[in-house]
Amino acid sequence: MDAISVIRAKRDGSRLTDAQIDWIIDAYTRGEVADEQMSALAMAIFLNGMDRAEIARWTAAMIASGERMDFSSLPRPTADKHSTGGVGDKITLPLAPLVAACGAAVPQLSGRGLGHTGGTLDKLEAIPGWRARLSNEDMLAVLGDVGSVICAAGEGLAPADKKLYALRDVTGTVESIPLIASSIMSKKIAEGTGSLVLDVKVGSGAFMKDLDSARELAATMVGLGTDHGVRTTALLTDMSTPLGLTAGNALEVRESVEVLAGGGPADVVELTLALAREMLDAAGLPDADPAKALADGTAMDHWRRMIAAQGGDPDAPLPTAREHHVVTATADGVLTRLDAYAVGLAAWRLGAGRARKEDPVQAGAGVELHAKPGDHVTAGQPLLTLHTDTPSAFAYALEALDDAVAYAPRTTEFTPAPIVLDRIARA
Amino acid sequence: MDAISVIRAKRDGSRLTDAQIDWIIDAYTRGEVADEQMSALAMAIFLNGMDRAEIARWTAAMIASGERMDFSSLPRPTADKHSTGGVGDKITLPLAPLVAACGAAVPQLSGRGLGHTGGTLDKLEAIPGWRARLSNEDMLAVLGDVGSVICAAGEGLAPADKKLYALRDVTGTVESIPLIASSIMSKKIAEGTGSLVLDVKVGSGAFMKDLDSARELAATMVGLGTDHGVRTTALLTDMSTPLGLTAGNALEVRESVEVLAGGGPADVVELTLALAREMLDAAGLPDADPAKALADGTAMDHWRRMIAAQGGDPDAPLPTAREHHVVTATADGVLTRLDAYAVGLAAWRLGAGRARKEDPVQAGAGVELHAKPGDHVTAGQPLLTLHTDTPSAFAYALEALDDAVAYAPRTTEFTPAPIVLDRIARA
Repeated sequence: MDAISVIRAKRDGSRLTDAQIDWIIDAYTRGEVADEQMSALAMAIFLNGMDRAEIARWTAAMIASGERMDFSSLPRPTADKHSTGGVGDKITLPLAPLVAACGAAVPQLSGRGLGHTGGTLDKLEAIPGWRARLSNEDMLAVLGDVGSVICAAGEGLAPADKKLYALRDVTGTVESIPLIASSIMSKKIAEGTGSLVLDVKVGSGAFMKDLDSARELAATMVGLGTDHGVRTTALLTDMSTPLGLTAGNALEVRESVEVLAGGGPADVVELTLALAREMLDAAGLPDADPAKALADGTAMDHWRRMIAAQGGDPDAPLPTAREHHVVTATADGVLTRLDAYAVGLAAWRLGAGRARKEDPVQAGAGVELHAKPGDHVTAGQPLLTLHTDTPSAFAYALEALDDAVAYAPRTTEFTPAPIVLDRIARA
Repeated sequence: MDAISVIRAKRDGSRLTDAQIDWIIDAYTRGEVADEQMSALAMAIFLNGMDRAEIARWTAAMIASGERMDFSSLPRPTADKHSTGGVGDKITLPLAPLVAACGAAVPQLSGRGLGHTGGTLDKLEAIPGWRARLSNEDMLAVLGDVGSVICAAGEGLAPADKKLYALRDVTGTVESIPLIASSIMSKKIAEGTGSLVLDVKVGSGAFMKDLDSARELAATMVGLGTDHGVRTTALLTDMSTPLGLTAGNALEVRESVEVLAGGGPADVVELTLALAREMLDAAGLPDADPAKALADGTAMDHWRRMIAAQGGDPDAPLPTAREHHVVTATADGVLTRLDAYAVGLAAWRLGAGRARKEDPVQAGAGVELHAKPGDHVTAGQPLLTLHTDTPSAFAYALEALDDAVAYAPRTTEFTPAPIVLDRIARA
């Protein structure tokens, strides 16, 4: 077996055999296949695709490249959620303690943000004292004690994926359904959850810009999870406009706490409950009532214990940005567009995200929304507030927002897209 | 400008702009663009192609990455030949001194073999004392004195191509017409020849397996040369069976000397004369008579002076292999096939070629043919003699020949392919 023959096979449109896939993932992990060979193969896969059986084997080989976790000693069924990433997507924060409050165990291994979508760990690090990195033992202890944990994934899970993900990032081979699906699912299956709900985002702020490709990605991942014994379903959800009224780190923590307190923006509450019901169903707890757990304070109680277990002070004031700039509406009418990608890019430029892995993020930076598509607005009213510690960033952030907003006459019938667009389960 | 945006543009089927091409070739040569980024781009080019204008700019950028040679101080017109590589293709050896004998200057910068096609420098190194590496000054001196020189290309010509060629070799991105054409022509144009004849091989022993793709490659290269002021034509020539009766290093030198002595196999003589006439025409010497220069010994005289000028002894006995194995005909009839690729692979396995750049080659190893397609043979008569210093290689070489030979009944009308299949010049 050699790398060139595997590359040539995919380049010329052939299926890769099981033996070819097992060999190349293993040899790449060990450093025997060079980065320049794997990137040529990744581009050939990007352009010529992989069929279901190839994707399944590729995923299995990435899982086999590292350790697998085991939650079978826990007394509760495990349920996890993965989002493909969106602007203002803070859902993990209220969702994990909410589902724990309803009786499932939620091992939420998360990442940091890169580019215009924020990272869950970056958001939680806005809470004074909170730390993302736990040993496997500490992670299991928090999970057993509180019922949910949100922490950084260890180095041992799917190391082939870690190496390949970093390579794809610099070689223009990110947006490939076979490569995205196998990357996400290898980590989630190695993590050892019993059930998994996928939140596949669709729209300007997401990887998948249209419903068809989102549906294909979701179906691929649901198939992979199911084949590996993980009860997996997916919701396709709207990402044409930001989720909720904030995009940023501390700003999103504040909004998440509002949801846990029984308030918060309607779309965040709706999506949190929809995903909670999917997770509880998949975990074999169909009779749990997440709406009640939000209303009666048990979800909030779990949140406070989860944050405290990782060193965070749930009562500490959250950091705020030193400088603000208000963007006002330029017309009277119905707001028909407030573009997710533009808002995400603006938040990133204000300091909420990072350009390179090693950059720091600003806890207080981001964008606050004062209206959403479908709302009636008046010229001159505040539409957005930009938050940053570095006021020199305002001009660059405003440039991102140049074309973000559209209005229609007040008499126009305009119905914003629903949050949940579709549901995918194994046929 | 950044590598990822260039890769994405080609990945998504766009034309690369002049600025993108200039930037990426320069940044790759300087090491700012990484090998894994260039290999992803090479695969995207392999699968999505480049149009004529892109190939022209890519070639120009590779030329600009290094130095250009200048032969304008020579009193004679310069003419060069490049073959895309075949089995038994020793034509450069008799051709360079022959064309020099007819009045042109022939600066033949050559390479070593890798894979089943032998390298011109490896063949000449079978001559005791002969050395491939000359300084630019020594090369010009031999060229001025003898009229022809065959030596290794210096490090300074098209360094971007050298880096990219080595990368393509290990990433499955060799057989791409835009990448082959730009690689060959950047070196030949940087070398500074006034005219150039391309010998584009077609058939099992060549990169191009069919006439259409060979024609496309030839037309692309003729266009590139012409646009850069090099008078360029191409012959498409048959490579379904080896050229002449030998494939190997010393074996091919011996056969070349036979041609220079006025004998040698008919196909080698025919192709040598056809290419010589093309070169002399392109060099503005249409009245030269290469057949006469072969017959009257002036070509042989130039050969002896050229070999001696590089330290070789034209009278020294050539090395021979220690072990021989004769393959006999298994049927009576007309030989209809003696496959070029199979013979090339057998010669390579016997030790005439190398698997890795740093491997040595055996001077005496190779395959000698006792019949060619179209010849009548009798069961049991010698068909091939295998030569090697390592008899353990016989079994492996014989395996390559398993399916190499075919016969038809003696009464069958069978006409072998002509040597020259087509001629391509700028319309």
